[in-house]
Amino acid sequence: MSLKELMRFYQQRAHCALDRHLPSEQTQPDRLHQAMRYSVLNGGKRIRPLLVYLTGQAFDIKPEILDIPAVAVELIHAYSLIHDDLPAMDDDDLRRGKPTCHKAFDEATAILAGDALQTLAFYVLSAPTSDLSSIDLSARLRMIAILAQASGSRGMVGGQAIDMAATGQVLNLAELENMHIHKTGALIRASVQLGALTVPEMSESALAALDYYAKCIGLAFQIQDDILDVSVSTEILGKMQGADQANHKPTYPSIVGLEESRLMAEQLVKNALASLSEFDQRADPLRWIAKYIIERGY
Amino acid sequence: MSLKELMRFYQQRAHCALDRHLPSEQTQPDRLHQAMRYSVLNGGKRIRPLLVYLTGQAFDIKPEILDIPAVAVELIHAYSLIHDDLPAMDDDDLRRGKPTCHKAFDEATAILAGDALQTLAFYVLSAPTSDLSSIDLSARLRMIAILAQASGSRGMVGGQAIDMAATGQVLNLAELENMHIHKTGALIRASVQLGALTVPEMSESALAALDYYAKCIGLAFQIQDDILDVSVSTEILGKMQGADQANHKPTYPSIVGLEESRLMAEQLVKNALASLSEFDQRADPLRWIAKYIIERGY
Repeated sequence: MSLKELMRFYQQRAHCALDRHLPSEQTQPDRLHQAMRYSVLNGGKRIRPLLVYLTGQAFDIKPEILDIPAVAVELIHAYSLIHDDLPAMDDDDLRRGKPTCHKAFDEATAILAGDALQTLAFYVLSAPTSDLSSIDLSARLRMIAILAQASGSRGMVGGQAIDMAATGQVLNLAELENMHIHKTGALIRASVQLGALTVPEMSESALAALDYYAKCIGLAFQIQDDILDVSVSTEILGKMQGADQANHKPTYPSIVGLEESRLMAEQLVKNALASLSEFDQRADPLRWIAKYIIERGY
Repeated sequence: MSLKELMRFYQQRAHCALDRHLPSEQTQPDRLHQAMRYSVLNGGKRIRPLLVYLTGQAFDIKPEILDIPAVAVELIHAYSLIHDDLPAMDDDDLRRGKPTCHKAFDEATAILAGDALQTLAFYVLSAPTSDLSSIDLSARLRMIAILAQASGSRGMVGGQAIDMAATGQVLNLAELENMHIHKTGALIRASVQLGALTVPEMSESALAALDYYAKCIGLAFQIQDDILDVSVSTEILGKMQGADQANHKPTYPSIVGLEESRLMAEQLVKNALASLSEFDQRADPLRWIAKYIIERGY
């Protein structure tokens, strides 16, 4: 399969797995569960589940085993988007072209839906389930610890706090990088780690190599996002061109310029690929993803 | 030790354990960590940690082992209070006589602090730690699953959603009970279960007996709260007398009357005590707590 086909295949697989693990719209309290399903099952890119699946696939792990960690990382991502969109945070009315959770429902429901999605992420990883029963118990506990560390106050939530404090401020390159490493990078790294931890007797050196790969592509992804924001028309991007600049959000092009930003992203992808050198051709989709990140036009 | 002394002892122990597990005020992002510490270390009653400690103590489990589950349940409780106080929810300015988190800091920080406290609860239960290392791995995973189930959309968060929807509505007794079983009951039951799961080779029948005890005292506690709200002066209660009535919150006295409410609470405590009949005198503090619940005057 090509990367495009793989992405579509695993997007669909993640969608079905999320659908299965979310309570139905009829489960009481029904409005809360409707808000949770509305926010999760709205056709996101599912980059984080994709990384779980592709990492496991590089070691011949069956997708059935990877569904649970894929669901867990996407639930964390989905909860963070609901809370980030709230009026007290980024105050966004639209998400993927549809009303945000607090607009479609109400603010209280959106807060609670986000809260409950976070809880569900930890539930699916810990619940007695046949899908994960082949995984070593200590690896499962480690998955939970890694996901919690990546999404907490010293990970994703910390990154959002840094981002809130940074808007309108002048940041230097190190500060900008620090924000992204926390806000988006931590969960991307956790996705690759969780995928890798489904592999029996995974070596610590392979885990470290995969982690470095994930760190590099996470940052490259963010730099490319910033580049696209200033260089692509609003129509192609699906959001206002130059939106970051208008919102006084610090970006890579605003700090180091467009050309230097491109070079940085390319170097990060090179480093990511180098970190995969010990893995065989089953890891090719992970290599494709790395290249895709800086080649994508939107 | 008397119950009063035990309560003071374990309150202090829980405070120190929480202090140890929360990032310092200097850890970046510092404002977020300050908000987390402000909300947790403000001298709550620590009923949930107390139940963890007293349950473990009934089986001679050392307090060092009980610190982690005690911290986890209190972090969940603390996060829920921060989010419940938000303007979009109960819109409270004061909590235990001090400004609520969003008043002392700001709304965005309060949302993020709550989010990160929830994450931390699951982190402490899963982290590689010497304190819990004597516990069977499957028991630790089960603790995480129980805590997640109790605090998610079909537990505590679901109860808060039911509560939000119920304000101003006429509820019958079954609906009122359903709300409390979720909103406060689920986490109280989880506290006792987590304490019990630290006991090596705990039997399922003992777990079930303790769970029934916890279910009864959780509901009795809520009924007594409602009774005190209508029968005790504002001065003693520390909050406005009749506040529930003024807020059009459904209560036990408003549905079944004051006398019937008292009888219900007494019967629940009797049932709770009966459920402990198989345990020896080391479980006496759990019995004292049950009686204390309906004898307390505030």
